[in-house]
Amino acid sequence: MIINFDKNTLMNAINIVSKAVSGKTTMPILECILLRANNGRVILTANDTELGIETIISDKCEISEEGSTAIDARLFADIVRKIDDEGMIRFKTDGNIVEITSASSEFKIQERDPDQFPLLPRLSEETSVTTSQFTLKEIIRDTIFSIAPNDSNKMMTGELFEIKGKRLKATSLDGHRISIRTTELKKEYGDLKAIIPGKTLIEISKILEDDMEKDVDIFFDKDYIMFKFGETVMTSRLIDGEYFRIDSMLSNDYDTRITVNKKLFLDHIERSTILLRETDKKPLILNIRDGEMNLKLNTIMGSLNSLIPVNKTGNDLMIGFNPKFILDVLRVIDDEEVSLYMTNPKAPCFIRDEEGRYIYIILPINFNPAAY
Amino acid sequence: MIINFDKNTLMNAINIVSKAVSGKTTMPILECILLRANNGRVILTANDTELGIETIISDKCEISEEGSTAIDARLFADIVRKIDDEGMIRFKTDGNIVEITSASSEFKIQERDPDQFPLLPRLSEETSVTTSQFTLKEIIRDTIFSIAPNDSNKMMTGELFEIKGKRLKATSLDGHRISIRTTELKKEYGDLKAIIPGKTLIEISKILEDDMEKDVDIFFDKDYIMFKFGETVMTSRLIDGEYFRIDSMLSNDYDTRITVNKKLFLDHIERSTILLRETDKKPLILNIRDGEMNLKLNTIMGSLNSLIPVNKTGNDLMIGFNPKFILDVLRVIDDEEVSLYMTNPKAPCFIRDEEGRYIYIILPINFNPAAY
Repeated sequence: MIINFDKNTLMNAINIVSKAVSGKTTMPILECILLRANNGRVILTANDTELGIETIISDKCEISEEGSTAIDARLFADIVRKIDDEGMIRFKTDGNIVEITSASSEFKIQERDPDQFPLLPRLSEETSVTTSQFTLKEIIRDTIFSIAPNDSNKMMTGELFEIKGKRLKATSLDGHRISIRTTELKKEYGDLKAIIPGKTLIEISKILEDDMEKDVDIFFDKDYIMFKFGETVMTSRLIDGEYFRIDSMLSNDYDTRITVNKKLFLDHIERSTILLRETDKKPLILNIRDGEMNLKLNTIMGSLNSLIPVNKTGNDLMIGFNPKFILDVLRVIDDEEVSLYMTNPKAPCFIRDEEGRYIYIILPINFNPAAY
Repeated sequence: MIINFDKNTLMNAINIVSKAVSGKTTMPILECILLRANNGRVILTANDTELGIETIISDKCEISEEGSTAIDARLFADIVRKIDDEGMIRFKTDGNIVEITSASSEFKIQERDPDQFPLLPRLSEETSVTTSQFTLKEIIRDTIFSIAPNDSNKMMTGELFEIKGKRLKATSLDGHRISIRTTELKKEYGDLKAIIPGKTLIEISKILEDDMEKDVDIFFDKDYIMFKFGETVMTSRLIDGEYFRIDSMLSNDYDTRITVNKKLFLDHIERSTILLRETDKKPLILNIRDGEMNLKLNTIMGSLNSLIPVNKTGNDLMIGFNPKFILDVLRVIDDEEVSLYMTNPKAPCFIRDEEGRYIYIILPINFNPAAY
């Protein structure tokens, strides 16, 4: 296999597939990138067996000899990044050693057997849904923070993606809070759903561009989902099972509603976290009255009392939350103002917009009102 | 004690003294900043008992009630950083609780007994040397990388600062290499020397400005050194003892000299480190011939062979080094070209300029020439 690559084109392709290289594995082949050169194009593949990414280089490469090889992904990326900036990179294999040569340097590293590399599953490409890369990236950003961080409940480490007619809805929850984000698609589709691993969503959103004009096609299959965009294909195993039913929790009733400037609210909650250590479970108290809200926090490190103007409808209310949960929501809302809908100190708080694009549900924390 | 501070002025002073706040200590008072307000000025002090910093706020603060207090440095810094940006910050103590109040928020945190705080030693201010902040910062940058990282030899964790007439010379060494940096002072001084802890030099260079016009006065005492600049005083304990005698190692003889483009040499050595793991002790081989030099590295990860044009005087030579040691030197040299002076594969290599501003000495590594 002999190929001349343009450095930047190759670097870009390595960066894309590297997102699926296994970090911790006992199988060295999963730490590799597979390269296959034929019919005038080179396919780079990485696959950690849960998530696989393939990207194609067809421009700016000259294949003198077709073939395939597998090489250590981190080393390959480091070499291409640091080798001479100018000119082409020559890539040559003999079934044992890869030579990577630039104008002034020649690296030699070990090859791995490409036949050991686990190829991506081939999916039926019948049922696909199209949206812009920008939209998919935004939906992930707006919901990914409320997946559960570890495997104690596998289902909570993923997100439910549902298609109904023209609507795509993403839901994530971790037992303390729920995030729901909906978007309108350009076309009508049938009913589809899949529970996508959080890691897949995190990695794809690093590759997707912030571009409304560039599309991504999403293919739903029984055990897999596939994303196609540009020269890249990403295939992920799905989480098996029935997702949590949360419809009964959704309600439009409330006894207290406040509307508050998002930036101001965010600044004040960030200010309060100064007094919290990682392990601290102290609630941030919202003391809501006509026209204003006190934020109060008492911890072993000290106390804070802040005052924020709000627009209030309904009853006065004192309610306590984990400030991090409100912070996570405020950080992804782009609106200038946010509205919180509450019933009583023990019932969930809803943060949602009028248009139904987002609904965030946060469970309050019990506290002793006499202490505040 | 009641003071109104301008937020940015206070933040700046906290940032300066925080460099001397103890990171790991069993004495909570050493995690504090001492504040003393009297005669229209506020003195902030931090002291980890090795290194102490004092800075004065006299502008943009209104003292309504004089007094003193000690408060947790990290918490104080976090609060002042995150409190409202606009307007003044009110600081009030009652001997138990500190209130820090802005337009919309009030923090209350615990005070510590200011009388427990260890004050900085008062030095005789007789013997001082003056240089620009820029120069001192540069001398530290150019030598600090070759102090020994840990305490197995206390002396090696510091640098020798020597004054002789109009010359200031800084020397550091770690057993494998030596860095010497000399600068000319504006005035003539007597003979002075001090072994300054590396930590002191690292922290002061974070505070010093890159300014040729702003001076720093250095006061030499028996057990301490003091730096005065702007509104800040930094006092450090010295390392006790006689520094290593290295004069016998210095030599102007050589059998091979090369002159090479610094940027190119640096890029190529950085490229070689791709093939090294942290614990790797493999030498980088310089194979020097007329007009060119091969850089060769063989490790478990692969091999590299690079070619660089050089200007050579004297014999051909093959010599091996720890590439990190050459990298450290090249990163601080501002010249476009550097010269290396060598004798044989077992003798130290000198990297020095014509003017005698810097001398770097690096010991080579033994290797088997047949393998390259």
